[in-house]
Amino acid sequence: MKHLKRLFEINPWKIATHELHQDDIRLQESLTSTGNGYMGMRGNFEEGFSGDHHQGTYIAGVWYPDKTRVGWWKNGYPEYFGKVINAINFIAMDLYINETKIDLATQKVTDFYQELDMEHGILSRRFTVEADNMKVAFSFERFLSITTKELGVISLKANVLEGEGSIKVVSKLDNNVQNEDSNYEEMFWEECAVGTNFVTARTVPNNFGIEQFTITALMENTATGSYTSESYKDTFLATENIMFNVSKGDTLTLDKKVVITTSRDIEESKQLDEAKKIMTTINSSSIEELKAAHSLAWEKRWELADVVIEGDDEAQQGIRFNLFQLFSTYYGEDDRLNIGPKGFTGEKYGGATYWDTEAYAVPLYLALADPSVTENLLKYRHNQLPQAQHNARQQGLKGALYPMVTFTGVECHNEWEITFEEIHRNGAIAYAIYNYTNYTGDTSYIKGDGLEVLSEIARFWADRIHYSKRNQKYMMHGVTGPNEYENNVNNNWYTNYIAVWVLKYTLDNYKKFQAETTVNLSAEEISHWEDIIENMYFPYDEELDVFVQHDTFLDKDLMPVSDLAASDVPLNQNWSWDHILRSCFIKQADVLQGIYFFNDEFTMEEKRKNFEFYEPMTVHESSLSPCIHSILAAELGMEEKAIEMYQRTARLDLDNYNNDTEDGLHITSMTGSWLAIVQGFAQMKTYNETLSFAPFLPEKWSKYAFHISYRGRLLHILIDENVTITLLSGDALDVDVYGETQHVTDTTVVALKK
Amino acid sequence: MKHLKRLFEINPWKIATHELHQDDIRLQESLTSTGNGYMGMRGNFEEGFSGDHHQGTYIAGVWYPDKTRVGWWKNGYPEYFGKVINAINFIAMDLYINETKIDLATQKVTDFYQELDMEHGILSRRFTVEADNMKVAFSFERFLSITTKELGVISLKANVLEGEGSIKVVSKLDNNVQNEDSNYEEMFWEECAVGTNFVTARTVPNNFGIEQFTITALMENTATGSYTSESYKDTFLATENIMFNVSKGDTLTLDKKVVITTSRDIEESKQLDEAKKIMTTINSSSIEELKAAHSLAWEKRWELADVVIEGDDEAQQGIRFNLFQLFSTYYGEDDRLNIGPKGFTGEKYGGATYWDTEAYAVPLYLALADPSVTENLLKYRHNQLPQAQHNARQQGLKGALYPMVTFTGVECHNEWEITFEEIHRNGAIAYAIYNYTNYTGDTSYIKGDGLEVLSEIARFWADRIHYSKRNQKYMMHGVTGPNEYENNVNNNWYTNYIAVWVLKYTLDNYKKFQAETTVNLSAEEISHWEDIIENMYFPYDEELDVFVQHDTFLDKDLMPVSDLAASDVPLNQNWSWDHILRSCFIKQADVLQGIYFFNDEFTMEEKRKNFEFYEPMTVHESSLSPCIHSILAAELGMEEKAIEMYQRTARLDLDNYNNDTEDGLHITSMTGSWLAIVQGFAQMKTYNETLSFAPFLPEKWSKYAFHISYRGRLLHILIDENVTITLLSGDALDVDVYGETQHVTDTTVVALKK
Repeated sequence: MKHLKRLFEINPWKIATHELHQDDIRLQESLTSTGNGYMGMRGNFEEGFSGDHHQGTYIAGVWYPDKTRVGWWKNGYPEYFGKVINAINFIAMDLYINETKIDLATQKVTDFYQELDMEHGILSRRFTVEADNMKVAFSFERFLSITTKELGVISLKANVLEGEGSIKVVSKLDNNVQNEDSNYEEMFWEECAVGTNFVTARTVPNNFGIEQFTITALMENTATGSYTSESYKDTFLATENIMFNVSKGDTLTLDKKVVITTSRDIEESKQLDEAKKIMTTINSSSIEELKAAHSLAWEKRWELADVVIEGDDEAQQGIRFNLFQLFSTYYGEDDRLNIGPKGFTGEKYGGATYWDTEAYAVPLYLALADPSVTENLLKYRHNQLPQAQHNARQQGLKGALYPMVTFTGVECHNEWEITFEEIHRNGAIAYAIYNYTNYTGDTSYIKGDGLEVLSEIARFWADRIHYSKRNQKYMMHGVTGPNEYENNVNNNWYTNYIAVWVLKYTLDNYKKFQAETTVNLSAEEISHWEDIIENMYFPYDEELDVFVQHDTFLDKDLMPVSDLAASDVPLNQNWSWDHILRSCFIKQADVLQGIYFFNDEFTMEEKRKNFEFYEPMTVHESSLSPCIHSILAAELGMEEKAIEMYQRTARLDLDNYNNDTEDGLHITSMTGSWLAIVQGFAQMKTYNETLSFAPFLPEKWSKYAFHISYRGRLLHILIDENVTITLLSGDALDVDVYGETQHVTDTTVVALKK
Repeated sequence: MKHLKRLFEINPWKIATHELHQDDIRLQESLTSTGNGYMGMRGNFEEGFSGDHHQGTYIAGVWYPDKTRVGWWKNGYPEYFGKVINAINFIAMDLYINETKIDLATQKVTDFYQELDMEHGILSRRFTVEADNMKVAFSFERFLSITTKELGVISLKANVLEGEGSIKVVSKLDNNVQNEDSNYEEMFWEECAVGTNFVTARTVPNNFGIEQFTITALMENTATGSYTSESYKDTFLATENIMFNVSKGDTLTLDKKVVITTSRDIEESKQLDEAKKIMTTINSSSIEELKAAHSLAWEKRWELADVVIEGDDEAQQGIRFNLFQLFSTYYGEDDRLNIGPKGFTGEKYGGATYWDTEAYAVPLYLALADPSVTENLLKYRHNQLPQAQHNARQQGLKGALYPMVTFTGVECHNEWEITFEEIHRNGAIAYAIYNYTNYTGDTSYIKGDGLEVLSEIARFWADRIHYSKRNQKYMMHGVTGPNEYENNVNNNWYTNYIAVWVLKYTLDNYKKFQAETTVNLSAEEISHWEDIIENMYFPYDEELDVFVQHDTFLDKDLMPVSDLAASDVPLNQNWSWDHILRSCFIKQADVLQGIYFFNDEFTMEEKRKNFEFYEPMTVHESSLSPCIHSILAAELGMEEKAIEMYQRTARLDLDNYNNDTEDGLHITSMTGSWLAIVQGFAQMKTYNETLSFAPFLPEKWSKYAFHISYRGRLLHILIDENVTITLLSGDALDVDVYGETQHVTDTTVVALKK
């Protein structure tokens, strides 16, 4: 783990540091990101920073379709690449002591402290500077309200420790921002209107028929102390200068409230008025009250979602950080949104929606939020069915192909080996429908929208699979499996498996709900699908008794990761792409992803053999990899491996495992640590309408506990020397613990199996 | 052939048209390109053209390294993409009748005629316009001298048919030019110096350590008639305005001589002086003398190179056009140059050197030029050995990997499936050494530089091949064969074959010349190579008895091209890339390319079976495909197929077969028609130090004839009802005709076999 870098202190509820990491500001910014589902930003400093850093504020659902740029155009490439765009910097509050601008990149500071309070969703920072014969202790506190989504609050306090003179605060709304995620220094904004306390900006026109988004930011600065104030406007910029006359012992405060309205909710001409109205409502509460409401709402989230770990503060901090950042990104309020891979913490990858949502986030939201949140995620895909059909047509295929990367449902990734070939993603969309239906027991979705989505995905598979006359088997050529360290392979076991599963699951449910569905499958279609189900080819090796990742995988020079030199890893930073592709090394679970998804369809012997074969060749260079391995290792009783993999997923960003957290957090991977604990350590499963557990307790931990919501019940699960299941609300139910049925009415205690 | 479009008349020696194809000016421009190996240009109109067209002048070896732009960066990608850049427009002569600018895009013209005289290398054009009560017949003639490479001559003549007034000619050197081959409207030139009769411009700086090229253009305008003249200079622009006062019956002439000097030969500070010196020398001859010298030199080229076809003017015109354009691009004078895929006719593809040179051009230059020309092409690669070693290192491999696309030897193509995987190109570099040595009988190259190149290519292969323990065979994974309609395949038969051939050929020659070579192979290396040679895996199917294109080719849904709908082809314009990759359709000879290269290593039965299996699945969407099929079809006695394929290669551009000639001519494919006639129809072979023929005469033709230069002899080969071989110079030699040895001392006649 040569890249491990830990900037923040171990603390169960806080991400805190007493050090200013001037050379790692990007990393520090990523880790102190905050968001409220509606908007968010990196942990940028309010007063600015002249050193290397990455200024980033993002508004959910506001994006720009940038022209696809490739070396060589290929038919079927998407026309544009959708980008999360850096929006108005509204936290800006430049600080001056007399004429000296405060800049932590160049000035000596003392008493630096930064803290992200995850329990209450508040980011604060303090530092003391000396300048012009004055010594001043500044502190900032800010939050993006989760009770009033449009509201951001930044509070400044300054104590004059020495000297006298002036302190000037330049409070700004600054839309002079660019994206830094590409080679092209383009400006994605055009100005609509600017006042001394507001800015309205619009995304620049595009050639792809995508709407131009407008954002209005309105600010109100409230100071205490002896001050004068002047306001200005300039291009993309509203400024209020607040000048305080101060001397030793004085304290001044400045509260900046910002309201953001956007064309996603309010048409441009009304945005400013609406922002003013919201500000008026806000102003009926004090800053303290606003903060208290916000904090309380976070506490409520934690009541349900928190995972308590005793005996391992690193693990405890890791899981909380992940849940905090995940909920800051998405809490299911808006069914037009999804969970972007970087959330509000960076620009990398573009797009807002990946298959990560269905594969990794849905199980968590099913357990930790109302079923309607997951249903919103399913509806999101149903709403985009026409676009998924468009994507299939782009490849000359029938049915629907959900995109790898998108904002609208239209594919906007531009590498053929991903866009055209990493089509297993389509299976995950179907799997989420199964997951929701199986977990909740609610068949209303699958009967309606669900079957529409399923049948179109199934049609895509049926058309994408070909019949090999020579082999008298159906096959699927030219795919990229979840292991993106191989491209354009034939008969990827996972993709073949999930494709056939989709055909089966769709047919089963079609037959079950035929009377109620609007979907109509022709007799020909049905018989074609049945023929595929019966005659699909799945690569399997008799000698090794393992499912084979794809046709020629076993012809490679097979060797374990442990044979690699330290200088080889991470492969993606040290080897040429070609070298990676030819090697046997696996980026993330591939065959094992299938065994995870369809766990109940495999014997323990199959699970063990495949795990033992593939895991040693896996480099886990995708943030989505360790959790799957942790879960399977736990099931197979490989506790040490399960814990090792948990640690990688839980502290991936906090310890900068993959040496790339400076670009932003791995938001969609953050569910992994929860999955590792709940589905891994606790072995929670929900197959066949039965909730089951088979927990183990990591040696170092004295206990762990979590809640789950399941079919109208709220359960608390505590693992220490016992497994204690407490029914907090809802009807009694049968729970399987270590293979024995427990009828849980109140609290059930079963001894921990060692 | 739905895209077939023929703009020019059938004529054995001319590319001529009496029509102005206003909507196809780009195509017209491509087909009337001229060049002299040192510089060249599209058939742009001297007076300009306001309609859609593509202005392009190119100076050999002058290029710009543009930043590689890709959607997603992959380790090992080249930093820059080398571009042929559009250089100074020096033919410009704007025409005015009084104040009316002449523009064939908007004005009605009569008597239009354009002609490229291939016999003498002269492009001319005439047209009559009416404007301002005047009627004037203009004619232009231009050539780029092949006797004084720096010289371009443009001659204007105007006859006043009606009216009186002024004719103004604005003769310009205009460096305000851009490239149009990319998304980015960048200017690749910066101004150095401008006078009223010269412009010196330099390529803009780059970040890749590539030299900045400087070009100086100097002009001299010489008029007859009654005129006044004024000269100006402006940014990147030197202008001379020549105003004639004319009336009905007057004739005026204007000769523009331009001298181009470049930093490739002369340092910037001396370029203008040198250009002036050259101009002074030139001025000792009249325009007529300059033209006569140039024309005579072309006639000399034809004396050796011409292929005479009787009975088929289309075929005759096709072969001459191809030879004309090929020699306009490269005639072997400068060993720093190579044969770019578009020559001086366009910007597409970038780079200047492809494996096309070794695979397709070398056999022609061996027969039609002094051996030193081919030796220059070999030296070019030897000079770039360090860069080829760099390319191998970029992939973490030993030895040398010659690039797919380059100016300097450093790879500048940026698609992983090509850059990293289409490595069979490396074999062609070695094959050219064999070809030269075998054809000429001269071992001096292979003993010296040749073995240095061969051993490094062999080292690359030995490192790129892996041992599959499971199969106990050596294999090569992750390649793209010559058929670029499949990517990242395993054990491409052609690549495996040529790789092992390189190992064998290198070892053989190393052992043969061990006493004379500086190359040193270790015993370990030798035994490793021998082990590979012995245990390499070559995919072969027993049932079909064919070599298999790659591991899983036969698992595809195999079908002939004849099953495709008309709307499907060309596939590359109608199918998604993915669809193409998954299909069985072959872009260009792949297994058959190997059978062509190593023809003497296969039985007729093997040739026939593989041809019959692969040809029906081949779409020939690479311009390099038809000729190989024509040659093999001829060998197999499939005369109709051989002729069909010849026609596609011979008139590829003249009939715009692939619907892309507007981008420029397919220069490197132009050897194909010569190969089809000489190696195909005439079945000329040179295996085992023996020159052999086995000709057939296409039904429609009454005869064909060509010269070849072979081991110090000049031979004339005539095929009509007989095969007549005439030894024009050099010693008597044995020639095998239809398998029987003929001792050729003067003229040998053998009856044509029917």
